[in-house]
Amino acid sequence: MVYVIKVGGNVIDNPELLQAFLKDFAAIPGKKILIHGGGKIATRIGDKLGIVSNYVDGRRITDAETIDVVTMVYGGLVNKQLVAKLQANGCNAIGITGADANIIPAVKRPVKTIDYGFVGDVDAGKVNGGPLQAMLEAGLTPVFAPLTHDGQGQMLNTNADTIASALAIALSAHYPVRLIYCFEKKGVLKDAADDNAVINLINREIYQQLLEEKILTAGILPKLENAFAAIESGVKEVLIGHAEDVIRNTTPSVAGTLIR
Amino acid sequence: MVYVIKVGGNVIDNPELLQAFLKDFAAIPGKKILIHGGGKIATRIGDKLGIVSNYVDGRRITDAETIDVVTMVYGGLVNKQLVAKLQANGCNAIGITGADANIIPAVKRPVKTIDYGFVGDVDAGKVNGGPLQAMLEAGLTPVFAPLTHDGQGQMLNTNADTIASALAIALSAHYPVRLIYCFEKKGVLKDAADDNAVINLINREIYQQLLEEKILTAGILPKLENAFAAIESGVKEVLIGHAEDVIRNTTPSVAGTLIR
Repeated sequence: MVYVIKVGGNVIDNPELLQAFLKDFAAIPGKKILIHGGGKIATRIGDKLGIVSNYVDGRRITDAETIDVVTMVYGGLVNKQLVAKLQANGCNAIGITGADANIIPAVKRPVKTIDYGFVGDVDAGKVNGGPLQAMLEAGLTPVFAPLTHDGQGQMLNTNADTIASALAIALSAHYPVRLIYCFEKKGVLKDAADDNAVINLINREIYQQLLEEKILTAGILPKLENAFAAIESGVKEVLIGHAEDVIRNTTPSVAGTLIR
Repeated sequence: MVYVIKVGGNVIDNPELLQAFLKDFAAIPGKKILIHGGGKIATRIGDKLGIVSNYVDGRRITDAETIDVVTMVYGGLVNKQLVAKLQANGCNAIGITGADANIIPAVKRPVKTIDYGFVGDVDAGKVNGGPLQAMLEAGLTPVFAPLTHDGQGQMLNTNADTIASALAIALSAHYPVRLIYCFEKKGVLKDAADDNAVINLINREIYQQLLEEKILTAGILPKLENAFAAIESGVKEVLIGHAEDVIRNTTPSVAGTLIR
């Protein structure tokens, strides 16, 4: 089994949560990959550098100055600090982006009504799994910053959930893969007001039912769509929940929401 | 032959020189490694972030804020832009630091009279050549930022010349290695006032003679000491000179200064 684990900004931004997460992550035996979000530090550093963030419909536009900031903050500061800390925890991490070894070639998002700027769209079918597989077989743990490139010299900002699902799909040709999304909730909730109302298992049938009953919040829908897309492309299972629950239990478990 | 090539800030900071350099570098056939310096951009970004650089005897002190800046600028911005541009030139680059895959474990420089801060001293004998060799054999071109780590979670700032020589030494156990230092002069000069007075070949005997005649400038001495240390540890030859001269001629050549 290969574990492809995405950890979000809420953990990256919190030193105590992060320390606990990295210890748990390092303790997972066997082959694993970490994909990290950026956290708020890119915005903080961008602000200090006098770069104004532009948003359209709540989504940040990645202009020329912003892609430089996220390249240095996600690809440098956050990524290398994670690597150094994982090394200290006995995990032989190697920190990279989708540009490195051309693992994730991407396409700059075409401009329709909105120009998102230097944002990369990924086609999971074009991921180069070879170098990734070689790293895993050599006992290394790849740690991905949420960045790709266009093959013409330009770095691109890319959603970390998407990268995680693309890597999981690419690896599923060679290994059974569990894709794990760590996020701020304990799992997919039956009742948005009750943090403990975790749905333990979702399959296509249950998902349809949940959609019909309009039980799911808008925020969770893209994650579930991503999850089912991964499963339909060969990923064995997807687990969504709190880092501490879904990382510690690496055997099939009831913690978090399991999607099959 | 493996080419271990160090390129300094004078090329990194100049878009035209850099573009020409990367094209020439990508065209070198076979196994190669690039080590890059940082250039002035770290100072520029540090200044914008309101971080005051402290110098002792002309050497920058790497305090806690400065190590974060160099980690993001060298390890993120500069490193990934080089990788993306090399990929665009058909070179399958992978950008890393000495912390990644624990290739270059280092020791924080002990405080004697001066506390240099988060600066890493490297013992070439402790370099882990295995992952590097695996990358080279897989057709990848490692691109190193001048950073290492202490194995306890802390990134460290490390001289790029030193990293280049340590990597060259580690690889010389498995391959014939040519170590190339690209710098702002055409080579080691017989006469500091004449940029064309390049000494084509230096061996130990000639070096002793040059030292006795006090012909060499203070700036070149550490480079030559580094070069001879590399050769005495198994590196086949060291070439020092202008990027355009020493990169294009990958067969033994008269361009630059050859040290044997």
